Amino acid sequence: MFCVRTCSGLMGLRAAPRVRSLHSFPGITIDEEVAKLLALKAQIGGDNVKHQFVLKTAKGTRDYNPKQMAIRERVFSTIIGCFKRHGAETIDTPVFELKETLTGKYGEDSKLIYDLKDQGGELLSLRYDLTVPFARYLAMNKITNIKRYHIAKVYRRDNPAMTRGRYREFYQCVNDRRILDGMFAVCGVPDDKFRTICSTVDKLDKMPWEDVRKEMVTEKGLSEEAADQIGEYVSLQGGMELAERLLQDQKMCRSKQACAGLSDIKLLFSYLQLFQVTDKVVFDLSLARGLDYYTGIIYEGVLTQAGVAPGSTEAQNGTPAEESVSVGSVAGGGRYDGLVGMFDPKGRKVPCVGVSIGIERIFSILEQKAEASAEKVRTTEVQVMVASAQKNLLEERLRLLTELWNAGIKAEVMYKKNPKLLSQLQHCEESGIPLVAILGEQELKDGVVKLRVVASREEVDVSRAALVDEIRRRTSQA
Amino acid sequence: MFCVRTCSGLMGLRAAPRVRSLHSFPGITIDEEVAKLLALKAQIGGDNVKHQFVLKTAKGTRDYNPKQMAIRERVFSTIIGCFKRHGAETIDTPVFELKETLTGKYGEDSKLIYDLKDQGGELLSLRYDLTVPFARYLAMNKITNIKRYHIAKVYRRDNPAMTRGRYREFYQCVNDRRILDGMFAVCGVPDDKFRTICSTVDKLDKMPWEDVRKEMVTEKGLSEEAADQIGEYVSLQGGMELAERLLQDQKMCRSKQACAGLSDIKLLFSYLQLFQVTDKVVFDLSLARGLDYYTGIIYEGVLTQAGVAPGSTEAQNGTPAEESVSVGSVAGGGRYDGLVGMFDPKGRKVPCVGVSIGIERIFSILEQKAEASAEKVRTTEVQVMVASAQKNLLEERLRLLTELWNAGIKAEVMYKKNPKLLSQLQHCEESGIPLVAILGEQELKDGVVKLRVVASREEVDVSRAALVDEIRRRTSQA
Repeated sequence: MFCVRTCSGLMGLRAAPRVRSLHSFPGITIDEEVAKLLALKAQIGGDNVKHQFVLKTAKGTRDYNPKQMAIRERVFSTIIGCFKRHGAETIDTPVFELKETLTGKYGEDSKLIYDLKDQGGELLSLRYDLTVPFARYLAMNKITNIKRYHIAKVYRRDNPAMTRGRYREFYQCVNDRRILDGMFAVCGVPDDKFRTICSTVDKLDKMPWEDVRKEMVTEKGLSEEAADQIGEYVSLQGGMELAERLLQDQKMCRSKQACAGLSDIKLLFSYLQLFQVTDKVVFDLSLARGLDYYTGIIYEGVLTQAGVAPGSTEAQNGTPAEESVSVGSVAGGGRYDGLVGMFDPKGRKVPCVGVSIGIERIFSILEQKAEASAEKVRTTEVQVMVASAQKNLLEERLRLLTELWNAGIKAEVMYKKNPKLLSQLQHCEESGIPLVAILGEQELKDGVVKLRVVASREEVDVSRAALVDEIRRRTSQA
Repeated sequence: MFCVRTCSGLMGLRAAPRVRSLHSFPGITIDEEVAKLLALKAQIGGDNVKHQFVLKTAKGTRDYNPKQMAIRERVFSTIIGCFKRHGAETIDTPVFELKETLTGKYGEDSKLIYDLKDQGGELLSLRYDLTVPFARYLAMNKITNIKRYHIAKVYRRDNPAMTRGRYREFYQCVNDRRILDGMFAVCGVPDDKFRTICSTVDKLDKMPWEDVRKEMVTEKGLSEEAADQIGEYVSLQGGMELAERLLQDQKMCRSKQACAGLSDIKLLFSYLQLFQVTDKVVFDLSLARGLDYYTGIIYEGVLTQAGVAPGSTEAQNGTPAEESVSVGSVAGGGRYDGLVGMFDPKGRKVPCVGVSIGIERIFSILEQKAEASAEKVRTTEVQVMVASAQKNLLEERLRLLTELWNAGIKAEVMYKKNPKLLSQLQHCEESGIPLVAILGEQELKDGVVKLRVVASREEVDVSRAALVDEIRRRTSQA
């Protein structure tokens, strides 16, 4: 089950000029006016209607301008192309769910959920991820077998520090919850400490081992011996051979579930070989994802870059590229075989495995790339601008425009009555329109159109009848 | 400024089996456990953690399954194609705005806005339309010139009755706020009654004139003479010639703004002639859109059908097709030259004109059409299924699958170790996969793949090297 989330929580405050909000009161009956004023007063909770407010987007949210959208859509089409290549179908679920649908699924993170105000209806919350709504969808529709992708925004009440900067490589690290739990068991971690020790291990991408060990021993009350044994394991990274080695490991073998996890890792790597991607995947015993609902394999997609970028985290304990710095996880997921059962009346389990791609970080990197490069990002797909050299040809321009539109050509005209030819050409250069169809008295008399190539400034007369094909031919790449 | 809104508020309650929500409590320290329990208790506001709840989507919202998504995406691509043909660029804004950004923009409708709970941050509301956030965006970014489209969901706390059924025709009716106000003035409506009388006129698509007149006189206290004069005007429908006739109308001429509006209608129809769409547009003096912010031309796209469908409204007073029934407005908009100024510190005005398409109604009609027709809606784009006739060929299937994926072919494989050939073929027929690439011992020995056309059951041996091109050739239509 793939999903792509564009998580609100990308940006902080915007430049915020002070603005007076004006309220117009068209003539209505006194009663209505009073009622309206009272409602308004209640709404703004103030005594003066003309109050000051800050012109901004909500904290943690942002607008996307046309350039940013063009980049975002490029990212999406790449991702969607991949999903479709693998035969996925897509679904959509509402942006908010019943509050209780989300309750008890996220552990500590629950405090980051946006709740809707109780306006006399149901208690609602904005979705925190796409996984829980998906599990709700499966249980509600009794679906036990689907390969779906879902692209949507999720809402979290935090402001993650965004890392930008050119990344050096992408790789994935893999682990298995059962290996972690088995490892804890054989290292002598008391059962009731598994989860909390797990969440400490999870910090290894942000803290050096020494600090993690300290937290385990002093804060979590783990024995030094247990901590050191864990330390040996979580420093391990490799592939198939590591899984095989650990399957021979005297201590590890004592845990049935660790063995089950290791055998699955082995099987996974045999598939990865067939898929020719072993060089991109690392079996990493220090990987421990936060969310409660994972039951088997877990993985993360990580971007690394040379040099520390502002806001980026410390070098992860032994990432493949030595001095490389993690730009953080851009994707993550795993197996969650218990979640759907939480929604099923009879608790019937539906095994699920999925990945979620956090689009913002990828987007912000590509956005910066585009800024850096000279490449001009087009925000429209207009193939031809219908222009005129002389005055009083608005109607002729609109007539030609209609011909082109009806033929499926992406065409535009300037909305002025008598625009200067120069300003029409400038508009083309600014917005990357490759062709201009120029109309003049002479052209109209001759039944032709002067077709100008903006880049080369080459001009050719094309008969009106042949224009559409000529435009198609010249923009077939676009 | 085009926008497409998929408005939540489409469906009522779903079938709702009772479900017990299970909460797992992995071993954590007592303090943490207590804290977690308290938080949880607070969240569900109950004393028993294992409480009952209804498995459903929030009232007024719905899921989209893969078939519905396929139809929805077809609708979107048609609409987006039209926007792009006309040179529009796209933007995106957050799903919620500061509450005060929406305050005082919707008049009566404000009560339908979803507010977010005050969780110690800013006061937020879910967007009610895409127009006000767009105006906020323009003011914030000091944009005075943009041709944008925006496709997104908006949120309204109501449950519109959905009309389904095959529609007979689509047409647009057009009017101008200035004509309405001018008409009211010359008919002797007191200034302070313009808006309220306007909202009564707005009901003409749901009530016969007699009832509308009654409301004007008895409820709104309008004189019978004034009401009857309005009655004559609002019954008028036509095109260019009607605008010309009214410009000669002794009474109408007394209103400057009515004349301004009528001249613009005339100009509009001169353009509509050039665009060859006069047959689809009706100048209708009874059209009066609800929202406050329109300042000039207003219009609605209307679907009509023969026979009354459940929940559909009464025949509109004199729609072109006589006994036809309005399926209601599927699009609407107009000019709003004042809205951006409400956000600008100096109140600078930015003239805007736009249309909003309500996708749900269009979607539900097309969905019903698809159900009625034999046409099979594909939910994936898979070109070929990699299958095997014998056992123990999983690895060979995955190897071929990888070859195809790397070549950009949309391919799929069944996840079973040894699936039956029949079940593999059945999956293709069910999901509309046109080709099957069958591997067997013999094919592997001969370095070929048996390519089967699902529809015709024709089978040909294709050399492994030529397979990709052969698949491309045979699915070039798809």
